Amino acid sequence: MKPWSKKPVIATLGSHSALQIAKGARDEGLHNLIVTIPKSTALYARYPCVNDVLEIESYGAFPSIEKKLRATNAIIVPHGSFVAYLGLKQHKEMNVAYFGNKNVLDWEFDRRKQRKWMEEASIVVPKLFSRNEGIDRPVIIKTFGAAGGSGYMLAKNNTDLKKYIKKMAGKQYILQEYIIGVPMYVHYFYSVMDKRLEILSIDRRYESNADGIGRLPIQHQTGLLEPSYTVVGNSPLSVRESLLPELYAMGERVITASKNLISPQGLFGPFCLEMIIDERQHMYTIEISARIVAGTNLFINGSPYADLFFDVPMSTGRRIAREISVAYKRKQLHKILHLDSHEKK
Amino acid sequence: MKPWSKKPVIATLGSHSALQIAKGARDEGLHNLIVTIPKSTALYARYPCVNDVLEIESYGAFPSIEKKLRATNAIIVPHGSFVAYLGLKQHKEMNVAYFGNKNVLDWEFDRRKQRKWMEEASIVVPKLFSRNEGIDRPVIIKTFGAAGGSGYMLAKNNTDLKKYIKKMAGKQYILQEYIIGVPMYVHYFYSVMDKRLEILSIDRRYESNADGIGRLPIQHQTGLLEPSYTVVGNSPLSVRESLLPELYAMGERVITASKNLISPQGLFGPFCLEMIIDERQHMYTIEISARIVAGTNLFINGSPYADLFFDVPMSTGRRIAREISVAYKRKQLHKILHLDSHEKK
Amino acid sequence: MKPWSKKPVIATLGSHSALQIAKGARDEGLHNLIVTIPKSTALYARYPCVNDVLEIESYGAFPSIEKKLRATNAIIVPHGSFVAYLGLKQHKEMNVAYFGNKNVLDWEFDRRKQRKWMEEASIVVPKLFSRNEGIDRPVIIKTFGAAGGSGYMLAKNNTDLKKYIKKMAGKQYILQEYIIGVPMYVHYFYSVMDKRLEILSIDRRYESNADGIGRLPIQHQTGLLEPSYTVVGNSPLSVRESLLPELYAMGERVITASKNLISPQGLFGPFCLEMIIDERQHMYTIEISARIVAGTNLFINGSPYADLFFDVPMSTGRRIAREISVAYKRKQLHKILHLDSHEKK
Repeated sequence: MKPWSKKPVIATLGSHSALQIAKGARDEGLHNLIVTIPKSTALYARYPCVNDVLEIESYGAFPSIEKKLRATNAIIVPHGSFVAYLGLKQHKEMNVAYFGNKNVLDWEFDRRKQRKWMEEASIVVPKLFSRNEGIDRPVIIKTFGAAGGSGYMLAKNNTDLKKYIKKMAGKQYILQEYIIGVPMYVHYFYSVMDKRLEILSIDRRYESNADGIGRLPIQHQTGLLEPSYTVVGNSPLSVRESLLPELYAMGERVITASKNLISPQGLFGPFCLEMIIDERQHMYTIEISARIVAGTNLFINGSPYADLFFDVPMSTGRRIAREISVAYKRKQLHKILHLDSHEKK
Repeated sequence: MKPWSKKPVIATLGSHSALQIAKGARDEGLHNLIVTIPKSTALYARYPCVNDVLEIESYGAFPSIEKKLRATNAIIVPHGSFVAYLGLKQHKEMNVAYFGNKNVLDWEFDRRKQRKWMEEASIVVPKLFSRNEGIDRPVIIKTFGAAGGSGYMLAKNNTDLKKYIKKMAGKQYILQEYIIGVPMYVHYFYSVMDKRLEILSIDRRYESNADGIGRLPIQHQTGLLEPSYTVVGNSPLSVRESLLPELYAMGERVITASKNLISPQGLFGPFCLEMIIDERQHMYTIEISARIVAGTNLFINGSPYADLFFDVPMSTGRRIAREISVAYKRKQLHKILHLDSHEKK
Repeated sequence: MKPWSKKPVIATLGSHSALQIAKGARDEGLHNLIVTIPKSTALYARYPCVNDVLEIESYGAFPSIEKKLRATNAIIVPHGSFVAYLGLKQHKEMNVAYFGNKNVLDWEFDRRKQRKWMEEASIVVPKLFSRNEGIDRPVIIKTFGAAGGSGYMLAKNNTDLKKYIKKMAGKQYILQEYIIGVPMYVHYFYSVMDKRLEILSIDRRYESNADGIGRLPIQHQTGLLEPSYTVVGNSPLSVRESLLPELYAMGERVITASKNLISPQGLFGPFCLEMIIDERQHMYTIEISARIVAGTNLFINGSPYADLFFDVPMSTGRRIAREISVAYKRKQLHKILHLDSHEKK
């Protein structure tokens, strides 16, 4: 990779956490560019913190603008909508400078690989059941790929399970023990430049209708509902301080395991451990998200945890921009980019 | 209206969001004045961001101070307690400069007019049932006028419904489909000065006992509870970024419809769409609040959404003060005030 | 007590709200020191806002460092983990300058004394039942001492109650009416220097599994759960502004009662009233915490309520440091410290 002679431009798809990423770039003195489809152009044009909006007809047209993005020194900052909108293959094949390690994507997408990663990191996970063995406790049925929580189903016993499995014909899914407890999403950032792991914020998802049914008393629930887990928003949390040592240790083990399992560059930048904490304060990790998560949108104006590290409101989006800015100034961008094939030639 | 020669003073009733409004005024360099009754005087006197407290014996005594308010160049900033404490008639007849369009008040208060407004704006709403037709799904029974959520009742079927309707004798109410999903309150601000619609923050209400009963397992709920929806507080939310384009479009349609239906000045300043989002991410709007809502009190020190527009912590109260301050400097206060009859003469 | 010739150092145990206390000290220009055990040393060393970490082998070794703490002009800022880790006796016998009035500790720990305190302050509390009288409504069974909510049990009737009481053999506990409503934790600060009571923030606890079971519909709850109340985190709230006058009055009555019942210095600095608000907006106080509570960790980067008093983000931890700093500059530290026996000699 040749040294970057010009200041990089932060580019992302217009969705998910694009506003946060754009504002973060601006706050760190970097130009930003949002690539989006017609129905969202007006949204991003509305915000003064967005420098440029590049409209494409559909997400499938993304390859047609890659040359343009390279010409503007763009660095792509990925988020949860990349796989959802571009597909895993197109996401990986994007031929533009990319913040992060694309080799992680397969390990994030495939639930079996992700589980291997967590086991390598000695992360406590819920028990998995195979399709044929039957279950002895409630399970969640989860399909592969980021789907914003929709399509999850709760089966209390084998009778439930059989009914649901019929609906899943042809889909890839796992059967995961349902842990009785409360959900918590811990937002990490590993800085390659500072060699430091940071917990920047914590949220819980706001799910429809799972977070609404508790407001109905049982006499109104009867026969009314199967819960659904469609994520429509997020709400902020803090965690008991005595759990922080283990949360940091878990984050560090996940990074170390990624270097062993995936590629030497490993996981860096933003990631999230999604967990259930039970009544004994045991933490069961449900999922690793190896990129910025939407829950960080709560903290565009700062978070209690980020404030322990930084004297300005430091969102995850801004943290990414700062990492890129520091790397650019030190002429070390190669340490935090997945080099695209074009540049490698 | 004669041009304002002196800087306006922001005045409001001591309740609801008065502290936020007062601090917002101070932060924008405007003097503030809180009009309140004896039991609340000590509260407002306690806060250094409140400039003046004017005590009246009861809210009914409000007309007796109008002359004084006019003499101090006061502009009234209304909130949810105005109708509750002054009544709709007295609120409308206040003879002091008023931020907002009073013609909107009737359309906010009368649920049938409000519904017409939402339909004109192509806002998706829950189905309404007439008293006599019977119901085929759960409904919420709601009385007219802002009541902080108390008095709402949930009827699952026609048997429930008959029981409740007996209690409602002589009251005006509607029967509204109960949407299974999660509530979300989106806080908008339409700036006449900047010709710009802004989403400033989002909350959900914290209701007693609806938000407590989910913490009881069913074996303890049996026979214990009918849910109640008394708003005692609020908690912050963020929304999925992919829903923002439609949320902005909804806000803009509500403004356009208000100009067609209500009066050419239309709706401006702060307003709130109160919605339920179901598992398919469909947004059903339950109510328009055509003024600052109490959920904005969560964001006196800034919000993730306001931060996308502003470089200082911008509460809705401060946004109002900024709009007034800009209009004053441009000699365009007439564009954002409902002119009282005294001034018009 | 001899006048402090050197700037005090803020010292606390590494747990609970230590990061907030340390950052607060730094932001107010005071040096900080965290005393912790080996498993938490790495956590506190990680944060640039922590000046010094002093490792001890176990909390039992605390007396061995008292001389050192005195030599560095340390002032201990206590939090909820002091009694949990040191025990009430050791906590009280610490021979180092101490922010707060240690005489309050017995009244906080002993639920019967605490109740007497609340009654003296005319605070509305849930009904208590004696062991032998039987119950006529749901009750919570609570053991003595801060335990983070774990071990609480809900008994709906006398049959439930008998079953649970068997498990409690040898423990001290109370039987408290279960109020149907929503919880709210109000964070107060009484400044001796400013002679002012401040509400700084409000939270609700995030409890496992009580805050998870509402996400399960009844068909999945059957036979599955007894609720537990282990506090694993916190989430932010605002309260209806019309409740603030009574909340301030309650706080002031608690302080006045403490001067009458406990010692002339009374309660000062941070404290929390933990309450349930029912559907009529009646506030039932469950507990007084006479020190900083963990819910304040949500507000390290400011709170809507603190912002009404202060122009910088004012956490409770920072508020404590400011009180100490002001007292030091005025040579009035004796007014806010419980003098240890060493100094008194």
